[in-house]
Amino acid sequence: MGDGEGALGLRRDAAVVIDAGRVAWVGAAADAPAADLRTDAGGAAMIPGFVDSHTHAVFGGDRAAEFDARMSGAPYTAGGIRSTVAATRAASAEELTARTRHLLDEALRQGTTTVEIKSGYGLDVATERRLLEVAARFTDEVTFLGAHVVAPEMADRRGDYVDLVAGPMLEAAAPLARWIDAFCEEGAFDVDETRRILTAGRDAGLGLRLHANQLTRSGAAALGVELGAASIDHCTFLSDEDVDALAGSDTVATFVPGAEFSTRQPYPRVDRLRDAGVTWALASDCNPGSSFTTSLPFCIALAVRDMGATPGEAIRAATAGGAAALRRTDVGRIEVGARADLALLDAPDPVHLAYRPGVPLVSRVWRGGVETRMWRDG
Amino acid sequence: MGDGEGALGLRRDAAVVIDAGRVAWVGAAADAPAADLRTDAGGAAMIPGFVDSHTHAVFGGDRAAEFDARMSGAPYTAGGIRSTVAATRAASAEELTARTRHLLDEALRQGTTTVEIKSGYGLDVATERRLLEVAARFTDEVTFLGAHVVAPEMADRRGDYVDLVAGPMLEAAAPLARWIDAFCEEGAFDVDETRRILTAGRDAGLGLRLHANQLTRSGAAALGVELGAASIDHCTFLSDEDVDALAGSDTVATFVPGAEFSTRQPYPRVDRLRDAGVTWALASDCNPGSSFTTSLPFCIALAVRDMGATPGEAIRAATAGGAAALRRTDVGRIEVGARADLALLDAPDPVHLAYRPGVPLVSRVWRGGVETRMWRDG
Ligand SMILES: [Zn+2]
Ligand SMILES: [Zn+2]
Repeated sequence: MGDGEGALGLRRDAAVVIDAGRVAWVGAAADAPAADLRTDAGGAAMIPGFVDSHTHAVFGGDRAAEFDARMSGAPYTAGGIRSTVAATRAASAEELTARTRHLLDEALRQGTTTVEIKSGYGLDVATERRLLEVAARFTDEVTFLGAHVVAPEMADRRGDYVDLVAGPMLEAAAPLARWIDAFCEEGAFDVDETRRILTAGRDAGLGLRLHANQLTRSGAAALGVELGAASIDHCTFLSDEDVDALAGSDTVATFVPGAEFSTRQPYPRVDRLRDAGVTWALASDCNPGSSFTTSLPFCIALAVRDMGATPGEAIRAATAGGAAALRRTDVGRIEVGARADLALLDAPDPVHLAYRPGVPLVSRVWRGGVETRMWRDG
Repeated sequence: MGDGEGALGLRRDAAVVIDAGRVAWVGAAADAPAADLRTDAGGAAMIPGFVDSHTHAVFGGDRAAEFDARMSGAPYTAGGIRSTVAATRAASAEELTARTRHLLDEALRQGTTTVEIKSGYGLDVATERRLLEVAARFTDEVTFLGAHVVAPEMADRRGDYVDLVAGPMLEAAAPLARWIDAFCEEGAFDVDETRRILTAGRDAGLGLRLHANQLTRSGAAALGVELGAASIDHCTFLSDEDVDALAGSDTVATFVPGAEFSTRQPYPRVDRLRDAGVTWALASDCNPGSSFTTSLPFCIALAVRDMGATPGEAIRAATAGGAAALRRTDVGRIEVGARADLALLDAPDPVHLAYRPGVPLVSRVWRGGVETRMWRDG
């Protein structure tokens, strides 16, 4: 994936040289310089490690029973997100760290080498801080999402909760996070509340992200573009005006089709974004309520099947697209100077990621130049 | 999965005793008898190994470029199934064996412990025989599918091709196969041709299976029931009369949603079958043209998302359902006397197979009582 063929810039019969954790050389295998250690990939396809720019990978408990009931048409009255908040508050930092590590190991083995992690299941100052500390053990891409929903104990004092998020909670979070995010949707936070929270985050030095237009064609997407968010995420329902606004901006549209899959929502389409020249990304949205997957290959297959993406576009969206959504240029591509984050496929062509859905095709992963099966801290 | 809770008969805090490749005891862990070797599953869910009752896992070449073109809306004029026939004819038994082994290893690591394999990319006597010999190295569930399409070189002599399949080709195939199958569809074989071929197969001692109603509401499903086929497969389009006929029969309806996924066809629904009490199965249809997956967990997730199945129904369809489609009672369930084919999940509940789509959740597999990562011959 460089200056070669097609949407991916595919190079054939190529070699990559790694030095000090970075890509030092890319070119035809026949021209490769000497190296201390050589690995023959046997004609298998190599891609940049996936950049998963949207996860909620720090939480307690799971919601398998809720999922089972939803998919079975059975009544289910237990807590939804509240049950995750309760389980998360009850979990120690050690428990949360172990669980997050397990999910990241799983993601890594499916080719993910960069991950963003949001807080948002604490919803009080102490727990949000704990979640951000856990996230920061694993990645620099830490996002404060105190504005996930109004904390259950403040349900009838939502103004106070917005004050808390934009005030003391943000103050505690800002030193630990790179980003601030909000869930701007009916049932969560409206456009005015979201504007206030994101603006406060920006003033505290954080970059902006936004959960936008997941359930309705709200004003969230337009708000995200107006405020210069790095990415607006979900985008299940975008108006033509939203697409036009995105096209004239640096904001990436991030799709999370795992959420549409697990909630039986309709999928968004990428056709209009392609026509308008909008950069879009694919992310897992890994979370226990609406998208409990860590698999970017699965998201790629869905984007091709159900969103109108070509295989090349979808693979690019999960690599360079994710990097753009995080305003990173050092990951998501295989080129000189980039981090040596590489995934080798048990396949001769990256197209197999969509052609062979559900199959664990990632055979080997290098992260920062080191071959690994486990996510390392930091 | 036995006499316990719900659609799966789930038992909690259970133990399984294996002896001489069979399940010797199932019950509460606290009551488990002594054993020479004990393994603690740590509270993880164990399911019967999947029974994949429909694959075309012996072939040469792949069709990634055709898939890429189809999904990209690009023109593609190369050979379709003909290209697979040409590549398969050109491949030696050794090459085909190595490729099939690779696919079955992949399937095994995703929990499949019983697999049916069809011929059908040879379409001449010698090559069909070679494919059946390769298939028979790996499984007893070998299916002769000379009636896949008319051989390209006989395209304008279809009557002669039907004579060949029902005559010399069947004669060569019958000693190697348990089943005969035909693709009854516009562009392949009509109801009269299919009846003739299946009847000849039955007279030669083979059980019957059928590719039916994949593209149209043809008479294929009704024919399969009439002839007493063990299974009619695809069933994308079933009429109410078809469902009624199935309900009064021993014929299983086998769904292969991987094919709908990879060809962007609409999915069938299971609701009517549930209401009518029809037994249905899930299979991979693993083939290079329309469903190049080996993953039953992926098929389970699709059945829940898009076919209206509950998680329990879908998991049962990929285990006991597949066994019923092969008229087997020794696989697809965990009970005393069954083959000790077991898959351990990295999850506390089998529901996670649908709740965590795309994630390789199968952590350990036992086949015939032996823990393994590789498909053994025979
Ligand atoms: Zn999210
Ligand atoms: Zn088939």
